[in-house]
Amino acid sequence: MCAQLISTQPYKGTRDFYPDDMRLRNWFFGKIRSALELASYEEYNGPMLESLDMYIAKSGEEIATKQTYNFADRGGRMVAIRPEMTPSVARIVAAKLGELNYPLKWFSIPNMYRYERPQHGRLREFWQLNVDIFGCDTYEADLDVIESAISVMRSFGADETMFKVRINNRRFFNDVIAAVCNTGAEGAKKVSKVVDRKGKVERESYEKDLFELGLNAEQIAKIDALYTMNVHEATALCPDSVGSQELVSLFEMLERTGLDKYCVFDFGIIRGLDYYTGTVFEVFDEAPENNRAMFGGGRYDNLVGMFAKNAKISGVGYGMGDVTLEDFLRTHDLIPDIYKSGVKVLVTRFDDVPYEKYLELAQSLRELGVTASVYVGSRKFGKQIDYAVKGHYSHVLIMGASEAESGTVKVKNLETREESTLALSELAGFFK
Amino acid sequence: MCAQLISTQPYKGTRDFYPDDMRLRNWFFGKIRSALELASYEEYNGPMLESLDMYIAKSGEEIATKQTYNFADRGGRMVAIRPEMTPSVARIVAAKLGELNYPLKWFSIPNMYRYERPQHGRLREFWQLNVDIFGCDTYEADLDVIESAISVMRSFGADETMFKVRINNRRFFNDVIAAVCNTGAEGAKKVSKVVDRKGKVERESYEKDLFELGLNAEQIAKIDALYTMNVHEATALCPDSVGSQELVSLFEMLERTGLDKYCVFDFGIIRGLDYYTGTVFEVFDEAPENNRAMFGGGRYDNLVGMFAKNAKISGVGYGMGDVTLEDFLRTHDLIPDIYKSGVKVLVTRFDDVPYEKYLELAQSLRELGVTASVYVGSRKFGKQIDYAVKGHYSHVLIMGASEAESGTVKVKNLETREESTLALSELAGFFK
Repeated sequence: MCAQLISTQPYKGTRDFYPDDMRLRNWFFGKIRSALELASYEEYNGPMLESLDMYIAKSGEEIATKQTYNFADRGGRMVAIRPEMTPSVARIVAAKLGELNYPLKWFSIPNMYRYERPQHGRLREFWQLNVDIFGCDTYEADLDVIESAISVMRSFGADETMFKVRINNRRFFNDVIAAVCNTGAEGAKKVSKVVDRKGKVERESYEKDLFELGLNAEQIAKIDALYTMNVHEATALCPDSVGSQELVSLFEMLERTGLDKYCVFDFGIIRGLDYYTGTVFEVFDEAPENNRAMFGGGRYDNLVGMFAKNAKISGVGYGMGDVTLEDFLRTHDLIPDIYKSGVKVLVTRFDDVPYEKYLELAQSLRELGVTASVYVGSRKFGKQIDYAVKGHYSHVLIMGASEAESGTVKVKNLETREESTLALSELAGFFK
Repeated sequence: MCAQLISTQPYKGTRDFYPDDMRLRNWFFGKIRSALELASYEEYNGPMLESLDMYIAKSGEEIATKQTYNFADRGGRMVAIRPEMTPSVARIVAAKLGELNYPLKWFSIPNMYRYERPQHGRLREFWQLNVDIFGCDTYEADLDVIESAISVMRSFGADETMFKVRINNRRFFNDVIAAVCNTGAEGAKKVSKVVDRKGKVERESYEKDLFELGLNAEQIAKIDALYTMNVHEATALCPDSVGSQELVSLFEMLERTGLDKYCVFDFGIIRGLDYYTGTVFEVFDEAPENNRAMFGGGRYDNLVGMFAKNAKISGVGYGMGDVTLEDFLRTHDLIPDIYKSGVKVLVTRFDDVPYEKYLELAQSLRELGVTASVYVGSRKFGKQIDYAVKGHYSHVLIMGASEAESGTVKVKNLETREESTLALSELAGFFK
């Protein structure tokens, strides 16, 4: 077809999904869908290509152009392959703003691309579960979304020893800093930005920045203490804060519904400064060798505002990547044998029996809902059995000339190696 | 967030899928998956971005660059958003050529992009079912693939009055032209190219081209006659052709398995000249107002050869677009009420009952496998009922202060408007 052979490697940072891989993915995406649909979340989707503007408006030009695959289409319009779903869903909500049935409980599992160096847990192409509630700005929506994340994790058999939801609140964060540091709201904002960077800089530089903002050692120690407090101790420092009240309501309800065993208050959860406005959370893998944030989210307001003037649709949600999830499931040995217990029948064939006899056998099994196919091709019987074993078939049917004549068929269970000879009329009963 | 509002329209030629749209898609993709898995086809997938080389090698530089979204990545590599799946699947097979279990019966439902002017039935972003068998070069694989297409159509309730599979064979086509025109193989090739264009040019120009190749009016009439013949009449003109034998075997087996009512021999099915090598077919919508080819496919050899030298993996398959399928289903009124008979419960709430009571109710229903959620937010009861109706909930639960006290709950069926008061302990029985 061409002189130069073309590489069989997938594009850098992307994956091919062979049937075994795909079966695993369909299994775990299926689990996610079931868990979310059971709680009345509805699935949506949008296009892979979006206007680059959207990402610039959300994240600024530098981040948007650096982290996305973007290019000019032939009409000169700048488009990007979506690197995340949030701008898309905000656009989709904005497009039918007045028609939708709020609060929306929505999810999606889109594929997306980010331009980055592929490394462990990070690929250029990935799928990301997005769960959001739009149109409710009180703690009940935060609770519902966190509960959904817990349900998804539990649906895989994960328990409280394997993962924890670490929760904080951005309003509370700002208010408690103001309270502890005795600054006004403006001063607290500056302090918050320094505290937000705490984990990323040397202790010395962190303290220096706070001293420069007028804080003393005692105030800095009070901020340190926040990292060790439980939610009641921490919120008691600024009880009038709306953020404190949201945190207290949320944790009270987690306790009363028994979900608190999966959750913990963590003052260290900030998730950047400009985007989130209330509850924030991250789900951690509790495995000692893999202890890290797997995914997270929180409340964000006014994202729809970039599309529709004066639209005040509050949102709360999270995004979970497929690579991280698969990692977690492997770490905790939560992936079952995905071929186990599935009945799948290969009808083997011999040349001296009319082919339609085999086709009829397979057809009759399919009509019973049993996965079945006739071996396609002309290799010898032994090779057909090898094919069945390698292809995860559970049973083979064998009908040679003598069986065909007597109206019988042999059924061989490939796992137990048991073989039985049945009349054709008994076949339905056997597989029921 | 930004001064200039951003458009809420999806990118030209792409679609947003709101929950109602997505539910329909999940329904029809689910039907397709079930039908194919029942016949032992296995799902695979590959990345959205591929090296542009692949499409150039298959279709030539002009078509490949014109019809794809392509661009240079930051490493200067030319990539394309996949416009079709065949090159990808050939690459994926080639990458594990020696390890796979042939014949492969594979399918995929990838999203893809083509750069074209959006019009009825054609969009820039679409999903396409791809079904292929690799590693069997005899008619049994052609039959299996055609049978799978029929099964997919039948799984939607489509019958033989709604669609037909029109079948031809490229080897037969070349051989019968040689036989009818009394040319050698080389001459027949030239004639075939003219005949392939028959439907696209004026009759006069068609005949002129054939006269120029040395044909006379009698020979041209013989070619015309082929379009009116059944498979037995047509293949009798060149009985020794391998293509004739394949056609005869295929139609014999379609007849013996009762699938012939969905199929018809059609000399007009060619599907271009350079790609297909044996059986070719197209599935037609039989609705008078929509009578046209919906999708098609056939046997192609050596596609894997562009990745692996001397690899002789024969393939046969087809691709079916989501837009065309949805069109067909609507034309024939084959889309059921996708919300019908689904139990989905909204737990309404009042402020004077502790919120956890409602959460517990929803949790207990979910444990039974019943889709349930608590109304998220604080709107009045009437608004909550409106929300339930608009959100396709089948039932609402109502627990005011007096019910909460007496340990009862009201269940209202939103379709029948029936209302019953149940003890909490009776709830499970009610929904089982």
